[in-house]
Amino acid sequence: MPSSGNSYKVRLLLSLLDLPCEIVDCEDATLEIAQARADGRLPFGKVPVLELDSGRLLPESNAILLYLAQGSHLIPADPFHQAQMTAWMFWEQNQHEGVIAVRAALRNYPSRAHLVTPERLADLLDRGHQILGMMEQHLSGRDWLVDGGMSLADICLYAYTHTAEERGGYDMARFPAIRRWCARIAALPGYQELFA
Amino acid sequence: MPSSGNSYKVRLLLSLLDLPCEIVDCEDATLEIAQARADGRLPFGKVPVLELDSGRLLPESNAILLYLAQGSHLIPADPFHQAQMTAWMFWEQNQHEGVIAVRAALRNYPSRAHLVTPERLADLLDRGHQILGMMEQHLSGRDWLVDGGMSLADICLYAYTHTAEERGGYDMARFPAIRRWCARIAALPGYQELFA
Repeated sequence: MPSSGNSYKVRLLLSLLDLPCEIVDCEDATLEIAQARADGRLPFGKVPVLELDSGRLLPESNAILLYLAQGSHLIPADPFHQAQMTAWMFWEQNQHEGVIAVRAALRNYPSRAHLVTPERLADLLDRGHQILGMMEQHLSGRDWLVDGGMSLADICLYAYTHTAEERGGYDMARFPAIRRWCARIAALPGYQELFA
Repeated sequence: MPSSGNSYKVRLLLSLLDLPCEIVDCEDATLEIAQARADGRLPFGKVPVLELDSGRLLPESNAILLYLAQGSHLIPADPFHQAQMTAWMFWEQNQHEGVIAVRAALRNYPSRAHLVTPERLADLLDRGHQILGMMEQHLSGRDWLVDGGMSLADICLYAYTHTAEERGGYDMARFPAIRRWCARIAALPGYQELFA
């Protein structure tokens, strides 16, 4: 789904690791996505989905990242660093995505317009600034989320964070460490933008 | 946190694998949890947290499960089965926990009473039945969530599913495959109840 941060995570990883993959676009609220769902090609009803050469289907963006990055430098060798990485990835799905991505979706997808209320947008703004504040505090004085170097945690959190101002309406001037971290990722060899 | 499904996942795994661990209770809305937060012992502001002998702290229940179960039979050796396992675990944090656990919390914790509205409870009931319906469909004709045997995905999803009726008010009579799966888990050697 071209506009989805969860899909972008996977595209960014594929590009950073230079892995070959055919990308099939399924934008929100289109016939393509309805058809994919009807065909049973979306095991959990959502995108992205990774289809292997064998035909096996894997849902969930963060599970796809872990699967594709096996053996690469993006999964720390140290078991505790690896656990810190997965902790950030679960936190992203439980706390960050349900606020930052949801506010962006409410503001950008016409199909969600009927769910928008001023109270809901205000609540998501306030909670999102708290969530970004937690990342800001952690990234102050650190280059990457996990000790030991860049990892999947950075790719995972970057997806919805780097568009939090433009798409979500968050005030990123408050978060200079996050902005430096975003610039660090955007400067990586093989980096690809959300809308490439 | 004795009443938390996220904490219970970790206790259940420790018991199933017979791993030694000192358990420190921090119930919701108590002085203990406020103190733990003030002391910087809750890296992401929430429980459970695993503290290693070295003093290092690991948040996020599902990251703790993955860390503690390394090398055990609860993490499939096959990389695709492992990816299916983590897919269910991310889905749990993104879809299941934010509905099933949230409805249970609204009904059971006095500290959440001010967040309860009839519309919100009705919405969470409807969405929860859809989520449980997805698990029911998947578990019909399967013993465990992931092909190849019981895994962390079952422990992870069991935590809030097995109390969905009693604490969440969901109608589990609709989901016979889930009920058989719950009974399978409750019969495991080393099984421990939520309130042991």
